[in-house]
Amino acid sequence: MAEGITPRSEDYSRWYTDVIKKTDLADYAPVKGCMVIKPYGFTLWENIKEGLDTRFKATGHVNAYFPLLIPLSFIQKESEHVAGFSPELAVVTHGGGKELEEPLVVRPTSETIIGHMYADWIQSYRDLPLLINQWANVVRWEMRTRPFLRTTEFLWQEGHTAHASAEEAREETLRMLDVYVDFAVNDAAIPVIAGQKSESDKFAGAVTSYTIEAMMGDYKALQSGTSHFLGQNFARAFDIQFLDENNELQYVWTTSWGVSTRMVGAVVMAHGDDQGLILPPKLAPYQVVIVPIWKDEEQRTPVFEAVERTRAALGEGIRVRVDDRDAYSPGWKFNEWEMRGVPLRVEIGPRDVEQGHVVLARRDLEGSARKQTVPLADGLGTAVRETLDAVQDNLYRRALAFREEHTRDPDDYEGFKEAVSQGFAYSWWCGDPECEAQIKAETTASLRCIPLEQEPGAGRCIQCGNAAEERAVFGRAY
Amino acid sequence: MAEGITPRSEDYSRWYTDVIKKTDLADYAPVKGCMVIKPYGFTLWENIKEGLDTRFKATGHVNAYFPLLIPLSFIQKESEHVAGFSPELAVVTHGGGKELEEPLVVRPTSETIIGHMYADWIQSYRDLPLLINQWANVVRWEMRTRPFLRTTEFLWQEGHTAHASAEEAREETLRMLDVYVDFAVNDAAIPVIAGQKSESDKFAGAVTSYTIEAMMGDYKALQSGTSHFLGQNFARAFDIQFLDENNELQYVWTTSWGVSTRMVGAVVMAHGDDQGLILPPKLAPYQVVIVPIWKDEEQRTPVFEAVERTRAALGEGIRVRVDDRDAYSPGWKFNEWEMRGVPLRVEIGPRDVEQGHVVLARRDLEGSARKQTVPLADGLGTAVRETLDAVQDNLYRRALAFREEHTRDPDDYEGFKEAVSQGFAYSWWCGDPECEAQIKAETTASLRCIPLEQEPGAGRCIQCGNAAEERAVFGRAY
Repeated sequence: MAEGITPRSEDYSRWYTDVIKKTDLADYAPVKGCMVIKPYGFTLWENIKEGLDTRFKATGHVNAYFPLLIPLSFIQKESEHVAGFSPELAVVTHGGGKELEEPLVVRPTSETIIGHMYADWIQSYRDLPLLINQWANVVRWEMRTRPFLRTTEFLWQEGHTAHASAEEAREETLRMLDVYVDFAVNDAAIPVIAGQKSESDKFAGAVTSYTIEAMMGDYKALQSGTSHFLGQNFARAFDIQFLDENNELQYVWTTSWGVSTRMVGAVVMAHGDDQGLILPPKLAPYQVVIVPIWKDEEQRTPVFEAVERTRAALGEGIRVRVDDRDAYSPGWKFNEWEMRGVPLRVEIGPRDVEQGHVVLARRDLEGSARKQTVPLADGLGTAVRETLDAVQDNLYRRALAFREEHTRDPDDYEGFKEAVSQGFAYSWWCGDPECEAQIKAETTASLRCIPLEQEPGAGRCIQCGNAAEERAVFGRAY
Repeated sequence: MAEGITPRSEDYSRWYTDVIKKTDLADYAPVKGCMVIKPYGFTLWENIKEGLDTRFKATGHVNAYFPLLIPLSFIQKESEHVAGFSPELAVVTHGGGKELEEPLVVRPTSETIIGHMYADWIQSYRDLPLLINQWANVVRWEMRTRPFLRTTEFLWQEGHTAHASAEEAREETLRMLDVYVDFAVNDAAIPVIAGQKSESDKFAGAVTSYTIEAMMGDYKALQSGTSHFLGQNFARAFDIQFLDENNELQYVWTTSWGVSTRMVGAVVMAHGDDQGLILPPKLAPYQVVIVPIWKDEEQRTPVFEAVERTRAALGEGIRVRVDDRDAYSPGWKFNEWEMRGVPLRVEIGPRDVEQGHVVLARRDLEGSARKQTVPLADGLGTAVRETLDAVQDNLYRRALAFREEHTRDPDDYEGFKEAVSQGFAYSWWCGDPECEAQIKAETTASLRCIPLEQEPGAGRCIQCGNAAEERAVFGRAY
């Protein structure tokens, strides 16, 4: 247990905010519901960005930038969209010392302004598909906020694509959902369930919304990324038309998809323990921290020489921090970097130098399994890389086992209530929004998604007992 | 001369906006004074960002993110700051459907909110220096706007550092100015004059402002980056104090420095010609475009094989686009990519394949000098890399020669007026803001900066004839 961090068993919610604050991921801002992302947290976000951006570019997308301020009338053009976002808008009414003729909205999302531009850019089938992503800040006036999970301003990427056919747009929607799954699993080491949102929970303006849902350390679900098939809703609202190959005017089919700084919260809660953060090596700001151990100047010289040799042996491509601060003891540094979740520590003391080795200590294991003695020689870089891979792999397998352990297929509604009180229930659902609402009212659990991968079959709705053709995942959620 | 682009000699200003629009760098947004940065322009910005960000990190800086919305009262805490920025503010008065108790300002720059946070983060000399940078969007309500050069919303980086001594903060201010010079010269191929801003032109709230000034193709100056020594002005306004080594409470010394999307405009105007853009290889979205030339299927197969071999020979690390579109002729593609400023074109036709070579065509040269025949063999990658280096180098030397040709050291005020009508004047100045204002009123030229590097000496002020101890650069400016 780390100083200043409430144990998870005592108060998970306080554990979360303690970890965020003590590990310097973020701080509260003087504006209601806003946060400051501190350098350690921002570096984590930069690594998330890079992992996603590389995948977007590999699937043919390019980045662009659209204005922050959107005329209020744009938001009002798509009826479901305005209904969904109106209560959350921040509105600029004055600019340059004058009241504006038309109020401007600080973007809560950019379908409308991007739709307006696409109407101008798209003329012919030759202009399609248009595959653009934007990294941006957005503002949604939230009542109850929590760092990274729900903040008035947050950072995200929003992909916006336009296609000549419904089929192609649907494929794109699912392709980007797959990209999110790939990122979550391979970079964030978080197992996710990819599925469709119910009608009552889809994006305001979408035909179909998809999500990736992850289980946090308190068994709650966190929606960690969404991908929407928007049909022709925005195309009609913004008159985005193209001449098809037969020279006929058609509306385009659009998609949008996003992942936000919420992913930082997912990493914290999927892997952290009572000591603090445990960061997956692929995303960790520092993958390795080297802690030299010395008492006096006589010891210092050979130890620091070994530190330099170690750093050289690691080579390029590993993010290393050498903690050579005089003012702190090795023990203090061990605790500090464990709390901050660095996946691997390299300890180098005088005796290690004498024996020609270093000690590797993994953050994700406990007891004797966590330490390993490795010769300070050419193979050190390989040993470290392999250990980082093992940490990455272990974090994923552990999170998956945790989710499986806390996901049940209850026989009846009583069992269902028990299941969602400490995990997910994977149950037949008749498709009726009434049942979904009833479940929410009675258990506080919501329908997280209808998983895309499920065995065909039929059963009885867990709530009403009527015939059901698909199963859904239910759980309490952030 | 490219279709749809006004020649520079006819109307430079229209040439600029034609180039921006025709080459797909940016588009006008439906919000007054805002622009959309299109994928081609945004990729250029991404490359600028990377060049700067790498340099910031190499000099010990880390990135963070502070809120977009700033309480109006914060802006009012530093008296010169509020006076400078008040006329330019966009103000959020409503959030979540209600009128806010205190209006929020969309950040025009972040000294105030960062100052507020630093007051909390900095307690002791051990917390210093604090070296943070932020990549962000900012909004300043501008009356007359131009894509990239002056827009209501723009993207930039703003560095904000805090130090224990004035000397250290001054060093930081100049270090970051050096970083900007290094970036401008080596990545953007733009020669810049590094110097101090006059009192009347410094940043609102600064003690001393420094700038890098570049000459554009119409002889006008473009301020391309600034670095400010803020003294203790913001430290006092936001109460940023620390306990020094003697346990005494002191105000910190702060700096701020920024480069914005304006740099894209600088690249356009420093290098472009009547054909369109000429992009420096270090920043170009595509460094090389490969244009296959074929008439029929029989020719197509061997030509496309050669294209693949060429791409393989170039290896990793060169940004290549293969323009294999069927719908356009090779000649059309040549024009298109010349207009869009790709530094090097590789032409591959059936005869080239027979003879086992490819043709390289440089964007920056004309006539017979621009084309070169190179064997399609292992050495091709090296030849291309060397040619890209030569383009980069030539662009810089050409821009430097142009600036030198259009910079004069006039003998008298008449000569001065002539000099600033088509270039820079490098003249003695007495230091009196009255003379500076007089020059502005009489010639429309402003004092761009007092160059840091100048031979010691003394002379007579070019305007009033009084004793002068330093020289300044004057010119018309954007």
